[in-house]
Amino acid sequence: MNYKELSLKKHGEWKGKIETVCRVPVDSREALSVAYTPGVAEPCMAIHNDVEKSFELTRRWNTVPVITDGTAVLGLGDIGPEAGMPVMEGKCALFKAYGDVDAYPLCIGSKDTEDIIKTVKLLAGSFGGINLEDISAPRCFEIETRLKEELDIPVFHDDQHGTAIVVAAALINSLKLAKKNAADIKLVINGAGAAGIAIAKFLLKLGVKNITVCDLKGIVCKGCEWLNPAQKELAEITNLRHMQGALSDAMRGADVFIGVSGPHCVTEDMVKSMADKAVLFTCANPVPEIEPEKAKAAGAFIVGTGSSENANQINNVLVFPGLFRGALDVRAKTVNTEMMIAASYGIAGCVSDKELSVDYILPYAYDKRAHNAVAKAVAQAAVETGVAKIKK
Amino acid sequence: MNYKELSLKKHGEWKGKIETVCRVPVDSREALSVAYTPGVAEPCMAIHNDVEKSFELTRRWNTVPVITDGTAVLGLGDIGPEAGMPVMEGKCALFKAYGDVDAYPLCIGSKDTEDIIKTVKLLAGSFGGINLEDISAPRCFEIETRLKEELDIPVFHDDQHGTAIVVAAALINSLKLAKKNAADIKLVINGAGAAGIAIAKFLLKLGVKNITVCDLKGIVCKGCEWLNPAQKELAEITNLRHMQGALSDAMRGADVFIGVSGPHCVTEDMVKSMADKAVLFTCANPVPEIEPEKAKAAGAFIVGTGSSENANQINNVLVFPGLFRGALDVRAKTVNTEMMIAASYGIAGCVSDKELSVDYILPYAYDKRAHNAVAKAVAQAAVETGVAKIKK
Repeated sequence: MNYKELSLKKHGEWKGKIETVCRVPVDSREALSVAYTPGVAEPCMAIHNDVEKSFELTRRWNTVPVITDGTAVLGLGDIGPEAGMPVMEGKCALFKAYGDVDAYPLCIGSKDTEDIIKTVKLLAGSFGGINLEDISAPRCFEIETRLKEELDIPVFHDDQHGTAIVVAAALINSLKLAKKNAADIKLVINGAGAAGIAIAKFLLKLGVKNITVCDLKGIVCKGCEWLNPAQKELAEITNLRHMQGALSDAMRGADVFIGVSGPHCVTEDMVKSMADKAVLFTCANPVPEIEPEKAKAAGAFIVGTGSSENANQINNVLVFPGLFRGALDVRAKTVNTEMMIAASYGIAGCVSDKELSVDYILPYAYDKRAHNAVAKAVAQAAVETGVAKIKK
Repeated sequence: MNYKELSLKKHGEWKGKIETVCRVPVDSREALSVAYTPGVAEPCMAIHNDVEKSFELTRRWNTVPVITDGTAVLGLGDIGPEAGMPVMEGKCALFKAYGDVDAYPLCIGSKDTEDIIKTVKLLAGSFGGINLEDISAPRCFEIETRLKEELDIPVFHDDQHGTAIVVAAALINSLKLAKKNAADIKLVINGAGAAGIAIAKFLLKLGVKNITVCDLKGIVCKGCEWLNPAQKELAEITNLRHMQGALSDAMRGADVFIGVSGPHCVTEDMVKSMADKAVLFTCANPVPEIEPEKAKAAGAFIVGTGSSENANQINNVLVFPGLFRGALDVRAKTVNTEMMIAASYGIAGCVSDKELSVDYILPYAYDKRAHNAVAKAVAQAAVETGVAKIKK
């Protein structure tokens, strides 16, 4: 039985990957008087008098919704809110298993930007942070930006920044192996959607200078008529030599290829045209831009994919549980760039120089040390940048 | 230490009365491939092709949000969404402990009727049913009515119908002890808000004929200028002799008093003015309309309150876990009157004729048999009235 069949069968048996449990005694009259009425009036009034107490007297401090509209689920596209639920439940399961965060999946039945922003804002008082998930570009930019401005709890669009953070971690360790400097490499990103744009912006902050981004219509270049506003902004800070053409043109001589696009858009010839010690992160899910074996056969030095079936899984599951754990632990008001950079180095640092190899550039997704390292690094960065309400 | 102090202390120690847990293995590469990517694409697409499968392949079948705007929390009034959270978390804890329902507390930061309706509708695809909680009248009527019309999952405003169902159960058993018939009694309800109106309407369906409802301004009577639309409707079906006056006038000669109002509005003289074998359900929380000892001293035959501190707790905790359990088990499309009547008789039937006494008219809130009986009765009524999608 392959993973697809097995997964469908298991989901039918599980009937849900998460559940809610009761943490307190409610099995006697006395217990009910404390956990429920009449005693519960007292914590209610304590919060009414000081809303910050909601982080001390309820589960708010540890609770994060995984919010989607189902428009960009995995590589499956706009499949609707209900159909996104297996992924969102999966995220919630991983939030708990790896970060001890209590997460709820909330799938919103509207694609309207204002509807989504308003829904999240109206619910924000119930949560310690907000994880946005699988919302398609360009709406996801506006949604995240506005929510970050208007809420004083961490807001994080995982597809953008989770992906950027883990890709950066993979890049840090790959460049160590290839003995190349971030400032000198030629890097190509395929997919100018949410993830691709976020990766480009984040890698610029990490010191990569020569970045070219491609989309279905070709290389993102200043002046191209087909660019959306987010891509226009991208054209200002990438492709500084104003190269035009197709993906195959961009890849010629490139040191690193990062795919956050779709299945089978990279050929063996394209890989062959890359520089020596070529690194490919083909993150499209569930089918990568090129199969790892083919890329290797064509001369690739390091290949990573989004799937746990191959070596070097580059998946944001390495990011979000620890990132929220760290942010929640210090009651961070936001997630800033410093916290994200700290997360990347936290992940990369989990692979020692001794362990590091072309088939082991990142810790395994289920490696608890990695999640703990991210949490610690993120919390520390939050404190150092003054966005933490609790100093640890 | 009294319950108030103890409750505040315990809530500070608990830091949340519920939490989310992971139900599936995610501790290896293989496990992740099944529960998460790439395997998860398959259940996603199965739901995309048939949205009903969301009840089979995710936790939707068992998940209910407890939704409030924090405007009518316990007897505390409009304390805001965050301050309502300890009660909502308590409800979720009881949902799980007594009904094995996975419930999330969602406190909405708006009092606008349309905002609340829209938020719930946008999230409905994530849930198997909707529990509305502590939303003040008259907005709660519009919100529940509209959501029942527009959604095909059970929608239940607990303050209205949960209270009505448990009060009816208490009345059924009290009348047995008092040897009186529902059709013959004179019954007074104090509090013409959400709960009072729902109780009046429900008891009429159960065969009580002579009902008088009072509010702060006096007896609800056809033609009174101060009535809101819901109270005007009530005036058409209660107080058929068009009595005017105060609560003390209504209570003279009454067989049953039901208080869903505020603290200390019933005097000993009012109790003395009632008929022989007077029954009082003083449900105001946390402080009842009259202390049970005082009511007993003034000649009351049976006294019930909303609190677990006294005998005869009349609290909707006896209703909502089993009602949703039953509705979810048969995938009921709605909660209809027949299901609610079945719940009342289910609760009442848990006290045998032998056990029944003036200090034991209802099963204890923590009696699992009662919750199971409600679930069974509700599921059966749903099937019999043709609103169940699963026939058990």
